[in-house]
Amino acid sequence: MRNFNRKKNQIREITVEKNYISNAHGSCLISFGNTKVICTATLEKDIPSWLKNSGSGWLTAEYSMLPASTTKRNIRNTKFGKQSSRSIEIQRLIGRSLRNIIDLKKISGYQFLIDCDVIEADGGTRTVSINGAYIALGLAVKKFIDGGVLVENPIKDFLGAISCGILDGEIFVDLDYKEDSRADVDANFVFTKNSGIAEIQISAEKNTFNQDSTVKMISYCQKAVEKIFKLQKKIIS
Amino acid sequence: MRNFNRKKNQIREITVEKNYISNAHGSCLISFGNTKVICTATLEKDIPSWLKNSGSGWLTAEYSMLPASTTKRNIRNTKFGKQSSRSIEIQRLIGRSLRNIIDLKKISGYQFLIDCDVIEADGGTRTVSINGAYIALGLAVKKFIDGGVLVENPIKDFLGAISCGILDGEIFVDLDYKEDSRADVDANFVFTKNSGIAEIQISAEKNTFNQDSTVKMISYCQKAVEKIFKLQKKIIS
Amino acid sequence: MRNFNRKKNQIREITVEKNYISNAHGSCLISFGNTKVICTATLEKDIPSWLKNSGSGWLTAEYSMLPASTTKRNIRNTKFGKQSSRSIEIQRLIGRSLRNIIDLKKISGYQFLIDCDVIEADGGTRTVSINGAYIALGLAVKKFIDGGVLVENPIKDFLGAISCGILDGEIFVDLDYKEDSRADVDANFVFTKNSGIAEIQISAEKNTFNQDSTVKMISYCQKAVEKIFKLQKKIIS
Amino acid sequence: MRNFNRKKNQIREITVEKNYISNAHGSCLISFGNTKVICTATLEKDIPSWLKNSGSGWLTAEYSMLPASTTKRNIRNTKFGKQSSRSIEIQRLIGRSLRNIIDLKKISGYQFLIDCDVIEADGGTRTVSINGAYIALGLAVKKFIDGGVLVENPIKDFLGAISCGILDGEIFVDLDYKEDSRADVDANFVFTKNSGIAEIQISAEKNTFNQDSTVKMISYCQKAVEKIFKLQKKIIS
Amino acid sequence: MRNFNRKKNQIREITVEKNYISNAHGSCLISFGNTKVICTATLEKDIPSWLKNSGSGWLTAEYSMLPASTTKRNIRNTKFGKQSSRSIEIQRLIGRSLRNIIDLKKISGYQFLIDCDVIEADGGTRTVSINGAYIALGLAVKKFIDGGVLVENPIKDFLGAISCGILDGEIFVDLDYKEDSRADVDANFVFTKNSGIAEIQISAEKNTFNQDSTVKMISYCQKAVEKIFKLQKKIIS
Amino acid sequence: MRNFNRKKNQIREITVEKNYISNAHGSCLISFGNTKVICTATLEKDIPSWLKNSGSGWLTAEYSMLPASTTKRNIRNTKFGKQSSRSIEIQRLIGRSLRNIIDLKKISGYQFLIDCDVIEADGGTRTVSINGAYIALGLAVKKFIDGGVLVENPIKDFLGAISCGILDGEIFVDLDYKEDSRADVDANFVFTKNSGIAEIQISAEKNTFNQDSTVKMISYCQKAVEKIFKLQKKIIS
Repeated sequence: MRNFNRKKNQIREITVEKNYISNAHGSCLISFGNTKVICTATLEKDIPSWLKNSGSGWLTAEYSMLPASTTKRNIRNTKFGKQSSRSIEIQRLIGRSLRNIIDLKKISGYQFLIDCDVIEADGGTRTVSINGAYIALGLAVKKFIDGGVLVENPIKDFLGAISCGILDGEIFVDLDYKEDSRADVDANFVFTKNSGIAEIQISAEKNTFNQDSTVKMISYCQKAVEKIFKLQKKIIS
Repeated sequence: MRNFNRKKNQIREITVEKNYISNAHGSCLISFGNTKVICTATLEKDIPSWLKNSGSGWLTAEYSMLPASTTKRNIRNTKFGKQSSRSIEIQRLIGRSLRNIIDLKKISGYQFLIDCDVIEADGGTRTVSINGAYIALGLAVKKFIDGGVLVENPIKDFLGAISCGILDGEIFVDLDYKEDSRADVDANFVFTKNSGIAEIQISAEKNTFNQDSTVKMISYCQKAVEKIFKLQKKIIS
Repeated sequence: MRNFNRKKNQIREITVEKNYISNAHGSCLISFGNTKVICTATLEKDIPSWLKNSGSGWLTAEYSMLPASTTKRNIRNTKFGKQSSRSIEIQRLIGRSLRNIIDLKKISGYQFLIDCDVIEADGGTRTVSINGAYIALGLAVKKFIDGGVLVENPIKDFLGAISCGILDGEIFVDLDYKEDSRADVDANFVFTKNSGIAEIQISAEKNTFNQDSTVKMISYCQKAVEKIFKLQKKIIS
Repeated sequence: MRNFNRKKNQIREITVEKNYISNAHGSCLISFGNTKVICTATLEKDIPSWLKNSGSGWLTAEYSMLPASTTKRNIRNTKFGKQSSRSIEIQRLIGRSLRNIIDLKKISGYQFLIDCDVIEADGGTRTVSINGAYIALGLAVKKFIDGGVLVENPIKDFLGAISCGILDGEIFVDLDYKEDSRADVDANFVFTKNSGIAEIQISAEKNTFNQDSTVKMISYCQKAVEKIFKLQKKIIS
Repeated sequence: MRNFNRKKNQIREITVEKNYISNAHGSCLISFGNTKVICTATLEKDIPSWLKNSGSGWLTAEYSMLPASTTKRNIRNTKFGKQSSRSIEIQRLIGRSLRNIIDLKKISGYQFLIDCDVIEADGGTRTVSINGAYIALGLAVKKFIDGGVLVENPIKDFLGAISCGILDGEIFVDLDYKEDSRADVDANFVFTKNSGIAEIQISAEKNTFNQDSTVKMISYCQKAVEKIFKLQKKIIS
Repeated sequence: MRNFNRKKNQIREITVEKNYISNAHGSCLISFGNTKVICTATLEKDIPSWLKNSGSGWLTAEYSMLPASTTKRNIRNTKFGKQSSRSIEIQRLIGRSLRNIIDLKKISGYQFLIDCDVIEADGGTRTVSINGAYIALGLAVKKFIDGGVLVENPIKDFLGAISCGILDGEIFVDLDYKEDSRADVDANFVFTKNSGIAEIQISAEKNTFNQDSTVKMISYCQKAVEKIFKLQKKIIS
């Protein structure tokens, strides 16, 4: 049995405190069970040099964990003078996922910087970050439309992410840290609401998997993500 | 008139959410007005190489700001591969201050790592960090005494910090960001409850100061810090 | 029509020059069409500190591109003092994939270092690297078994990787650079021969995808990978 | 009794070799007892990006120690790829102190770079650096006024720094290394001649201090600094 | 007797695979015995800032070794965040040598980037790199003249490099790794065909040398380099 | 005519202030004309890891320039997080040269760290550094023999370095900066007194050179270096 009597296809309790950082353009503190992430979105009048004169804007993300967010304190990145490989892999996923649902032409000359800072880590920090980042972005966009900085809404769709794993031959959605550390297969899915799947990442950890289990994991998570879309809709509009 | 009808010698409203990070040994989310800092204390069975075989333990601190904590987003330290000079100056102050009230002989072979991560910055982040760090340290020590890891309490005294400034010839305690940015003189004081002053740092910003104003700033702050000692006592014991 | 009259489900011509680097323990120069990668495997009597006394060995990978391997010369990593984010993401994938088919208990106290250096890049460098790394690893293992350094063969299975994409609604396997840069969806699959799938990574680039296209991509690639297994078998044994 | 029969309120013998580095715009080799520092001032037609179009110039400082300047050779900063925390704290103090006595409007579009390189360290390197930096700056300003580069003298006042400590309950000014390493309280004061105090930094080392000892330390140092002002006047004009 | 019955004044067998990297402007895979280097030349419309408005172009070189190129795998430079000192010394030599035979005025506003990546190291990697770099440069220049990017040929002369050493009192040219590691004196010479010597570097390793042995080493190498000039001529034109 | 009526084969006036840094084990301030370098030698009970259990000691060197030592202030290395390529090349030369005249077996388990910090640069900083480093080393060795730390003198010979150049077809020794910057050929020689030549480095700058000019440069410098040997002898013994 899972903690808190969770069913296999049931995601953890979600709470969102919107506008958590008043200095940020858009922000929230999002939690899935004990996993807590501060997500912020900042709009800057600047774009990467390789996009100059392209008519396109940009969106990029950074991901980090507070040292004490994990069960064993992790060493601050600045001690090494660089980010951990894992952080880099995750922030690339966050940025890539969000660029799927934003029309970069509509923020021409601007870029959104998404910051996801994990306050407490209990599994699923990358999917929780994507879900919170979407809300922070949505709140920032709303503020800039209200303020006349943006003329049109660049956000095209909702975006939700769910992690999932196989333990002892069974599929469980939204693993916590304890479940995750003994999973045979570890998967992350990012869905849009109206158009389709944005990202699938499945890694064999202790055991390989097959086409059949892949299809099942997609189905389970696609169902579960609906709850996230509803929440995002409620919070942003 | 100050925001919220504050008097010149009145500190902002303080809130403390203790044990805020469940993975940390000791932690709190502390706020002075809109300035919010997550402080954690971690005990490690390790000491700096230069203390090996000295019979002494150690305590050190790290300070960082979330990118979106400031009115204009600040660039993440890892982008530069190193901490900002300002962060380094502040974390040295935090560590030095706390080492005044801890008997390092009583944690021989161990070190405390203090992390102060600023969630939102509205002035006084270094003094708020010290106040929160003391609480995180106190909570961690209590847990380790209760758990039998520490035999004796290494904490010798209470420790409170107050910022202060001179604006238009008048002394104001606990400046917020707006006040701070137009202050002539910027000061930070760290007091112990029973023994005396641990640290004084006063910098002329737009104008120099003198012995007389120094004495007045000490008096104002020494009075104001009593409220912090009371709060610390209430939270920890 | 694809270059060289390739069919949609047809991989490019593969050539492998084994033992390409005589100083390396195991090595090959592998090419898929114009994509060329030097892969080497080195065995070291050392393991990461977190594995000490675990009875387990380790395998890790590094990936890099020669500056002139790409159509526009890419700046050498050492100029920035760190690897590119993309390189880090790829080398994590290579290491994770290979750890699926090696019994780390059988190399207790040792680690394999896999180096994949791209000489020329024309799409699919990460899958070509995995395929070549498997061969380099196999050749090194063979040498160490022959030399009596390893008692048992730690390699449990064959491992092959295939990239795949969706262009104009149709699935193409093993994209070259030109195809890749206009693909709607970009996918990478890593298969073992006997046990199942080791890794799936699918990213929407210009368009999202769905469960149906995911299943089709798996099928196409699972068929195509058989040719790689045969080649690996022929080269190593 | 102090070395060389010094009285408690007596500073060490000062020597200044002006224009010590002929390639520098302004320079001196300053010594307080055995503490020797090379100070140079360089004027550049450049300002930090955040000051562009502000009508203001800038002044910044860098501080470093030669490896063999300390009793135990200290590792060169470039070995770590970054400055030590202590160096950063000190150079921030030097820059901040000197900006108090220079009218940055009068060097609009220019910045002064102050370099303080410690040749030999026997206590008080930060205060000796400030005293020498003032002289190097004054000599450079004089040269640029003589040469017509600067129209008006931007220097508004004299600036002198004195260190001070409490040992066995008594106040001593200008500590050498041996005294410093056993002091209970460590203090640094920066004074202007005509306007007032520019900086106070007092840290409890082995013991806390109080308002009374603070006042006494200010008085002792304020008296002692007069000798430095006289010397600066004599050297520069 | 040397390996492969080489005479003391005989260089190893040379092979050159020209246009080895099709993405590069000019390239070759060059080998001297078992030493193999990939050399590429890239033309960029950019020059170092200190050459702006000088009417001159530039040429610079980078040198690196694949980790597994040496008998004991060498650690990738990016692990340290910087190049090895040896690599820096070598790439400075390569750039300086090539700038001798190129008329930088004729590539005004452009710079050539030379990359020498050692695939396998068996002695003489720096001289082999120079020889291959010359060919890569020549091939790139030819392409740009044919394509009309360059109007005049900026290459003024041929350039060849030979290493040489003293073992047991006798001079040997083009040392392999085994010879090099027991040489008393280690020398590298760079010659132009028509004008004279471009660079001499002679280091005592286990024994000093004298004017007489210097003259002999020059003579031996000057004779040996003729073979390289012939090969370069044949390959480029 | 050269500055100060110097003849072509005449070196600049040399001054040496020995024991210049009292904290160092051995030290001097050496000047050749306006070029001034602080050289120190430090003995450490430590050796590089690759020498452990070899019965050999080690000697290594570091070279740096003060920012204001050059006519245009050079940026401090720590700003870039690494040494300049030129500094690295030079410090490798200094270390290699000195290792020629020290019997490393006689300092088994120890290493000498040589620091050469250029205070003022007017040409020839690398040769002046070697000459000063030899003196600092000699003084340190003498102190350790006197103190009983070293039993035997590990220094086998004298070591002197001279720079030299070709201007308008004529050879000049010990170039100052102005001469150096318009030289056609730039050369550096390191000689031992009794055994022979330790290092030759000759680079064509604006023009190539030949065997004949090489021989002449050696002769000129070999004669000139005698004056340096005499000085070293006088200072050390």
